[in-house]
Amino acid sequence: MQSNRLEAFSDGVLAIIITIMVLELKLPEHGDTIRQFWDSAGVGLLTYLLSFVYVGIYWSNHHHLFQVVRSVNGAVLWANLHLLFWLSLVPLTQRWLDESSIARDPTVVYGVNLLGAAVAYYVLQRAIFRTPSGDALRDALGRDLKGILSPILYLIGIGLAFITPWLGLVPPIIVALIWLVPDRRVERYLARQDGAA
Amino acid sequence: MQSNRLEAFSDGVLAIIITIMVLELKLPEHGDTIRQFWDSAGVGLLTYLLSFVYVGIYWSNHHHLFQVVRSVNGAVLWANLHLLFWLSLVPLTQRWLDESSIARDPTVVYGVNLLGAAVAYYVLQRAIFRTPSGDALRDALGRDLKGILSPILYLIGIGLAFITPWLGLVPPIIVALIWLVPDRRVERYLARQDGAA
Amino acid sequence: MQSNRLEAFSDGVLAIIITIMVLELKLPEHGDTIRQFWDSAGVGLLTYLLSFVYVGIYWSNHHHLFQVVRSVNGAVLWANLHLLFWLSLVPLTQRWLDESSIARDPTVVYGVNLLGAAVAYYVLQRAIFRTPSGDALRDALGRDLKGILSPILYLIGIGLAFITPWLGLVPPIIVALIWLVPDRRVERYLARQDGAA
Amino acid sequence: MQSNRLEAFSDGVLAIIITIMVLELKLPEHGDTIRQFWDSAGVGLLTYLLSFVYVGIYWSNHHHLFQVVRSVNGAVLWANLHLLFWLSLVPLTQRWLDESSIARDPTVVYGVNLLGAAVAYYVLQRAIFRTPSGDALRDALGRDLKGILSPILYLIGIGLAFITPWLGLVPPIIVALIWLVPDRRVERYLARQDGAA
Repeated sequence: MQSNRLEAFSDGVLAIIITIMVLELKLPEHGDTIRQFWDSAGVGLLTYLLSFVYVGIYWSNHHHLFQVVRSVNGAVLWANLHLLFWLSLVPLTQRWLDESSIARDPTVVYGVNLLGAAVAYYVLQRAIFRTPSGDALRDALGRDLKGILSPILYLIGIGLAFITPWLGLVPPIIVALIWLVPDRRVERYLARQDGAA
Repeated sequence: MQSNRLEAFSDGVLAIIITIMVLELKLPEHGDTIRQFWDSAGVGLLTYLLSFVYVGIYWSNHHHLFQVVRSVNGAVLWANLHLLFWLSLVPLTQRWLDESSIARDPTVVYGVNLLGAAVAYYVLQRAIFRTPSGDALRDALGRDLKGILSPILYLIGIGLAFITPWLGLVPPIIVALIWLVPDRRVERYLARQDGAA
Repeated sequence: MQSNRLEAFSDGVLAIIITIMVLELKLPEHGDTIRQFWDSAGVGLLTYLLSFVYVGIYWSNHHHLFQVVRSVNGAVLWANLHLLFWLSLVPLTQRWLDESSIARDPTVVYGVNLLGAAVAYYVLQRAIFRTPSGDALRDALGRDLKGILSPILYLIGIGLAFITPWLGLVPPIIVALIWLVPDRRVERYLARQDGAA
Repeated sequence: MQSNRLEAFSDGVLAIIITIMVLELKLPEHGDTIRQFWDSAGVGLLTYLLSFVYVGIYWSNHHHLFQVVRSVNGAVLWANLHLLFWLSLVPLTQRWLDESSIARDPTVVYGVNLLGAAVAYYVLQRAIFRTPSGDALRDALGRDLKGILSPILYLIGIGLAFITPWLGLVPPIIVALIWLVPDRRVERYLARQDGAA
């Protein structure tokens, strides 16, 4: 099986996830000043920005991943759906985070959601390793430092949320910043391949 | 006519169906504890998970189907839209199931919805059998045991719902588990073809 | 410019339009019987079915259209966006039709919406006629009987709505049935081309 | 990296943005006359039309842009996501504009949103200039008069909104009209290239 339809479907799901979060932002019910707008939509805008960056990172990494992988099997299909399931919960947990103005439990649940997505991404990579394209990907990724660091940071964030809720968002923000620097490994690998050919 | 646009459109519809169900989940109106979250969104999360797996299965099978089929006609277009219509009702019937906390009638309607989608999928396969790619697909599918078993299980589920509502969900869950094991028939067929060439 | 991205974007918009209409269907606020379900969602389901068939027809015809057309220009891009604009209003006018239980004015507005889409489709065809692929399309379409009949039937429907609202839906239903029979002209044209080659 | 998946993802996001705005339009709560419809949805329809044209322009220009660009890097991916972020806010700011019946602050915020998108588009072009396809694009675009004029007009609009709110929408409408004339530069460039070959 070729990977192109898996990519198209994932693009569709991620495009919807990243866009519908805006639908949930609350507008002021009375008054039309920027201050009232900020009071009702401010926290929502900030958590939306964070979630947008997250989904963007997953899309970007997914994109890089399937630059190397060309053929998939049933296990990869379901590992991919598993990842999309976790990401599809982000609009829900982000909305709760927003509506609670960043209370403790919502911050923990948001962290668990991000952790679940990270684990699912890891499982997806492992599933791809077992396909014929697996060696190429293993080669391209090398030592997956970011991939190991991220879940640890999420766990720290979940822990910190029990002390002061908003502190629990700091590690996820650090993870986002780490990944925002695009993953050059695949690009470099593709360049090396071209050079060797 | 080539099948690629039919696939792209179906991917789009399925991606939306699978994602918008999350929009319907209810957050607690008062209180921000995980317990309150579970009280208001718990049943919704479980029925969402079931529906997500269902739509995922249809996407995966649809994907496999059109690996073999390359050219389509008007009848296939409409058989495909017919399938998408039934699947597009899943967010509605799932929401009712959730809001009623799995009452009798919503469970019956949800079962009828799944049965309708199964029949539509069967009709789609028959429509493809009558195209030039039909023989290849017939060959690839062989004896369609899962396809025959599923509607029978849905009917049993609809019957059980009249005794105890949540019992009516057990057969659909069994169907989901049966199909979660990806359909190897098409993969095997494609491999055989490659071997013969 | 190639037409593939225009097709992908249109597929996306049509996939969303056809799916979000389900979000608007109302569930019973009290009671969980099928009768209460039908009372609150029945008219919505029927008008949704009609609108689904309509958007499906437009997608199917659009699909056929761009089987012949391979390269587009700026005028075609905007004629296509113009068509999508009218179709994007269908969820709104359908919702009004539903919420009013098919009152006079909503039926008229729904008819005007369908008429607007039909005119936009006609304008799109004319824009394509002026591109290099224009002659091929003109050839493929021949005498556009359905295309001429449809707006006339919409106008009759708008007129009938002033007598008895639901009567105004009969002509649009007839139009839908006329188009449901897939448009063989393009298929036949492509077959003729293959035969001549 | 090839640009096709970036295009597909952007098409998805833009297709959703352009379509979900209709979900936000308010229907009359009492009464079913066209007058009541206009009273509740009129301003919404007009601001929706303006926003639809805007997103359509961005899609059309994006489409033209990536006709020339074939390979992208991480910086282009993120410059593109940055643009999509600003555009994803349009449904929110348009809804506020609508619900406030075009008050001062919502008009200012809407203008800032359009300005942000324009800046993001400029940044995206700069990011592409630094890729191997950069020279071809620079060539194709020539002196970017419209691109320079647009932000100036947005700023004027933001200023005018402080005098009379609805006046602040006039410059954005002028920008829309300027861009509605499709950008022939890329088409001409592609034609020149074909002629030279």
